[in-house]
Amino acid sequence: MLITLTTDFGLSDSFVGQMKGVMLAIAPQAQLVDITHHVPPQNILAGALALEAVVDTFGRGAVHVGVVDPGVGTDRAAVAVETEHGFFVGPDNGLFTLVLQRSSFRRAVKLSNAAYHRPTVSATFHGRDIFAPVAAHLALGVDFIDLGEPISELVTLNISQPVELDDGGLELHILHTDHFGNLITDLTWDRWCVLQPNEVERAKARVTMESKKIGPIRRCFEEVAPGEWLTYFGSAGRLEIAVRGGRAAEPRRSLSASHLKIQMVG
Amino acid sequence: MLITLTTDFGLSDSFVGQMKGVMLAIAPQAQLVDITHHVPPQNILAGALALEAVVDTFGRGAVHVGVVDPGVGTDRAAVAVETEHGFFVGPDNGLFTLVLQRSSFRRAVKLSNAAYHRPTVSATFHGRDIFAPVAAHLALGVDFIDLGEPISELVTLNISQPVELDDGGLELHILHTDHFGNLITDLTWDRWCVLQPNEVERAKARVTMESKKIGPIRRCFEEVAPGEWLTYFGSAGRLEIAVRGGRAAEPRRSLSASHLKIQMVG
Amino acid sequence: MLITLTTDFGLSDSFVGQMKGVMLAIAPQAQLVDITHHVPPQNILAGALALEAVVDTFGRGAVHVGVVDPGVGTDRAAVAVETEHGFFVGPDNGLFTLVLQRSSFRRAVKLSNAAYHRPTVSATFHGRDIFAPVAAHLALGVDFIDLGEPISELVTLNISQPVELDDGGLELHILHTDHFGNLITDLTWDRWCVLQPNEVERAKARVTMESKKIGPIRRCFEEVAPGEWLTYFGSAGRLEIAVRGGRAAEPRRSLSASHLKIQMVG
Repeated sequence: MLITLTTDFGLSDSFVGQMKGVMLAIAPQAQLVDITHHVPPQNILAGALALEAVVDTFGRGAVHVGVVDPGVGTDRAAVAVETEHGFFVGPDNGLFTLVLQRSSFRRAVKLSNAAYHRPTVSATFHGRDIFAPVAAHLALGVDFIDLGEPISELVTLNISQPVELDDGGLELHILHTDHFGNLITDLTWDRWCVLQPNEVERAKARVTMESKKIGPIRRCFEEVAPGEWLTYFGSAGRLEIAVRGGRAAEPRRSLSASHLKIQMVG
Repeated sequence: MLITLTTDFGLSDSFVGQMKGVMLAIAPQAQLVDITHHVPPQNILAGALALEAVVDTFGRGAVHVGVVDPGVGTDRAAVAVETEHGFFVGPDNGLFTLVLQRSSFRRAVKLSNAAYHRPTVSATFHGRDIFAPVAAHLALGVDFIDLGEPISELVTLNISQPVELDDGGLELHILHTDHFGNLITDLTWDRWCVLQPNEVERAKARVTMESKKIGPIRRCFEEVAPGEWLTYFGSAGRLEIAVRGGRAAEPRRSLSASHLKIQMVG
Repeated sequence: MLITLTTDFGLSDSFVGQMKGVMLAIAPQAQLVDITHHVPPQNILAGALALEAVVDTFGRGAVHVGVVDPGVGTDRAAVAVETEHGFFVGPDNGLFTLVLQRSSFRRAVKLSNAAYHRPTVSATFHGRDIFAPVAAHLALGVDFIDLGEPISELVTLNISQPVELDDGGLELHILHTDHFGNLITDLTWDRWCVLQPNEVERAKARVTMESKKIGPIRRCFEEVAPGEWLTYFGSAGRLEIAVRGGRAAEPRRSLSASHLKIQMVG
């Protein structure tokens, strides 16, 4: 009976507190866990990356609410999704794209049964009025299919993927910068093992970023000297670029996928 | 057995954690919910607005602690207030002004019974030493009247109200800017329905901000084009001014109640 | 069955949420309390100060996890420490130095028993893979000694102490700036009472910061006029320097221990 929350609401207003009040009025015993509320406003990709990380670390009965919802009040669907790793509740706008790449899809419903919503639903805050009460009812064990009409297809984000180059290298892209200034790329460990199944060959790979040589894939920061750049598969299972004791992301440099290229020769 | 916390303590120190430690030592089963700890330091009005939002979203047995307390250590009273919507604990400095406009006042006490405080009360941190233990005891079901002497009057903030103009319009004022840069005004939906009981007339109202025409009151953001300004009754039941996909609050522009005027012709 | 978390992970990524997911999968009934996740990145002293504050405010069965861990992935030890005031789990890098000055050390173990870790331990996120599961097992009541090999000595931070001057004064040092811009010094109330056991003499002490006269030690902010500087023993039991209604820490001025001197003549 665990519910997590991932939103772009920030913590300076009462939005998150209101969602929790609604949940706990329905399911007073629920354990509520904040994943993050600092998803950059309306950045669905950043929300998808935050949600990706909960797939492996929570038990399978958990309910995960995601609200990054620029289309609130329009006809975008509100959905609940059952996966092998738990339930996900939120807008049908691609927020669960990476979750569904990590976990097996089981079924989904459009949240059309108003019996599980707040009596009055605002046009601007479905997090409080639809997603929170639905998540609380799921945590209480409501029959999934009772939440609304089954749907078979969900909106999917078009997220960049590593590109295999003619010279045998890979072009990677930066998806995100974390709190420590580390750059998170679109190469997952699982994908890397498919692209280069030979462990000896993987050890020979060298990463470059623009004209900068980053070197081989490291295991931990201490393998390079303080102030030096390095690359490694981070705790989220993605290749990251970092500076030991510093920040790889310079505040002045815009980090769009198009600005940065990493070439990896396996 | 639910306790919420609203403070200006921020999250970079251990202040909030200390309050929770004190509460859970007394009431280990309590559910603790953060509303916000980012009330601008010593801004009682901003704290009052954050607390206003919990009135409708939490159950009636909840205990709400509010600590925005520039007068800590002076002779300002520490109080507990019972309302139709739950208990409120904090300094008697106007922090509960908006709560008491939304909920019915039942009774209040000055927290003079030291048996419910920490053994040693500091002069600078009543949040930890008085309000936290009192809230925990309330959550456990202590007799309200046992907390101290009954008082009949509470300090009230002088908060701006919409002004009816000679030309039939209304002058509104900005109370607050939220995380998304939306401007929250002093016109509540309830007040609007009193001022203009005719729904057809309400639909004819047009909002202007200084010389800018904002237009009619919308239901959701998608009713205007990206980048355009709009106005709508937000999730807190107040008229808000926003920019679709942007921020109405420019960081460089000071937003005091005196700078901005909105004229509404119903 | 209470676990607190103190880290430098920030709240914009899912790191903290992942730790909580791991804990709750092991100990679903655990109460989780955030102390702070805004310890400046890799600043062990700031982490030690945050942890110091939990010693007195939580019950003695609590488990406190601290993760400020620049040496993650190296051979620095991972430890659990039992004190008179509860359990502390984290890297053996000095993070518990101040806790151990406030509470009595009982015993410590190196976390060498992988049975209490996650099946796969990453090289960069021991917070999730070692400290979180160990803390959850401790909360469940695992035998402390079963976590790994006993160790008798822990790494200790070299933290500045007040220096007794030839003229009978004391030289203090700034350890930290809090959310309100108050400066936290290295003089604790307990130490002050040892250095100057005579209460009448303590009342005669006058504090100066560089050439600025701060005056006698106050009890609360209201003893000085708005905008004036003052000094007092704060809620953490340390002498603090503040400005009533303002900030003692100017953003432009670097606050290293070497920049500021406070002379106290008792």
